[in-house]
Amino acid sequence: MTGAQARWAIRKKQHTGPTSTLAPGFVQANLVVVPQADADDMRMLCARNPVPCPLLEETAPGSHRSRLASKSDLRVDLSAYRLWRDGELVERAADAKAWWRTDLVAFLIGCSFTFEWALSEAGLPPRHAICGVTVPMYKTSVPLARAGQLHGRMIVSMRPYRLADLERVRAITRPFVEAHGEPVAWGHQNGLGIRHLSHPDEGDAVPFEPEEVPVFWGCGVTPQQVAVESRLPYMITHEPGHMFVTDLRHEDLRRRRGVRSVAIA
Amino acid sequence: MTGAQARWAIRKKQHTGPTSTLAPGFVQANLVVVPQADADDMRMLCARNPVPCPLLEETAPGSHRSRLASKSDLRVDLSAYRLWRDGELVERAADAKAWWRTDLVAFLIGCSFTFEWALSEAGLPPRHAICGVTVPMYKTSVPLARAGQLHGRMIVSMRPYRLADLERVRAITRPFVEAHGEPVAWGHQNGLGIRHLSHPDEGDAVPFEPEEVPVFWGCGVTPQQVAVESRLPYMITHEPGHMFVTDLRHEDLRRRRGVRSVAIA
Repeated sequence: MTGAQARWAIRKKQHTGPTSTLAPGFVQANLVVVPQADADDMRMLCARNPVPCPLLEETAPGSHRSRLASKSDLRVDLSAYRLWRDGELVERAADAKAWWRTDLVAFLIGCSFTFEWALSEAGLPPRHAICGVTVPMYKTSVPLARAGQLHGRMIVSMRPYRLADLERVRAITRPFVEAHGEPVAWGHQNGLGIRHLSHPDEGDAVPFEPEEVPVFWGCGVTPQQVAVESRLPYMITHEPGHMFVTDLRHEDLRRRRGVRSVAIA
Repeated sequence: MTGAQARWAIRKKQHTGPTSTLAPGFVQANLVVVPQADADDMRMLCARNPVPCPLLEETAPGSHRSRLASKSDLRVDLSAYRLWRDGELVERAADAKAWWRTDLVAFLIGCSFTFEWALSEAGLPPRHAICGVTVPMYKTSVPLARAGQLHGRMIVSMRPYRLADLERVRAITRPFVEAHGEPVAWGHQNGLGIRHLSHPDEGDAVPFEPEEVPVFWGCGVTPQQVAVESRLPYMITHEPGHMFVTDLRHEDLRRRRGVRSVAIA
């Protein structure tokens, strides 16, 4: 199944669940949609916090097409949407048509499914993939760099790995700078202020095997926490795990890794 | 005085102090020099933490010339250097000639002098500039996003401002994304874990006027804290306040502000 076929299946309501196993090899993205009045702040938030919020694309105001996906319609090409008003999650729906406005700007943010593909290829599949559940996500105490009216704390995703595999896990995920890159922290003393691993704030808890420690990556659900803490007036997002499937391939993303490391001068 | 004249005066030991008042209008930079073996990690640290570490330039391995400054020599064009071994500050010197090696790579990181110029122009000069001292800098509890072997907590600089002026201060500094941009936090409840404002970790304490609160910006001294926490084997840096003066003008930096906010696609 290609990215285009996955979007079509979702649009036709033939696929309604999470997208993690859909269209293997194709880059998926977190969706954040705000009024044009908040777009400068959201763009700056991503620029200042590229680990949780690596920006893949910003749409033209009013457009619901992504340049990363042919014939796309961001209002109907995801399987589950959330509507936020004044920082509160007020509604969920299978499409966002009723919520769309002509002044909206969409931000597509890189997703960990990209490096999960690379981990699985290397024989290190994430536990939640084996269990068939959604990756566990946690609020942290780590403040983002503020951007205009936007502020909040980082959300992380967690995958258990043995310390013996840690350096391999780090090396595999590091090149994917547009998909959160390498872990931000690991271990039980991780400085992230997470209380209970068995009670994730989003997604599902996963079991640990002996010798495994939690390994944490920046997470594209972070803007939803920003909406809460900043009391953002109006925002549409995806439901965690229900991503936008693009036509870009994972390999393209790894190949583009140099983009952000080039000196400006 | 131009940037080139400032560098010449420093090289000839005619100027030996901090550089804050030197060559008004010209961009100054923090200096971080590491062996080529650590350069990938340092580049990634900057990419993942662009607020404290906005990368202006990375030199070719072994080169001591900056492309941002004509006929420059990074070994002698700063007025005070520090040498770090295994995370310890082991030596200070007025030039870095004796420490230079052929495998070294230099990173030039944006400096708050750039937005201080803009603040002063707007009638909001920083207190330390009025007092003629070095800006106070503090260790925080905020972890950076790890990069390879490098990790540590953010260093911030602090300037007192009235809350009534805060939004103006934020708006003035926001465009300078290559010079730390807008503040990361402010107020006495700032979430940064700073204990005593009267005891900065670098620079000098400054007095507060009535109604003023501390306002904190990311700081280019952060890599020195990273060296400590990561026990980096070998690193040369500037002495805080003693920056590298480039030929770039502050206005050029503000004009280039779009660079990092352009969508990738």
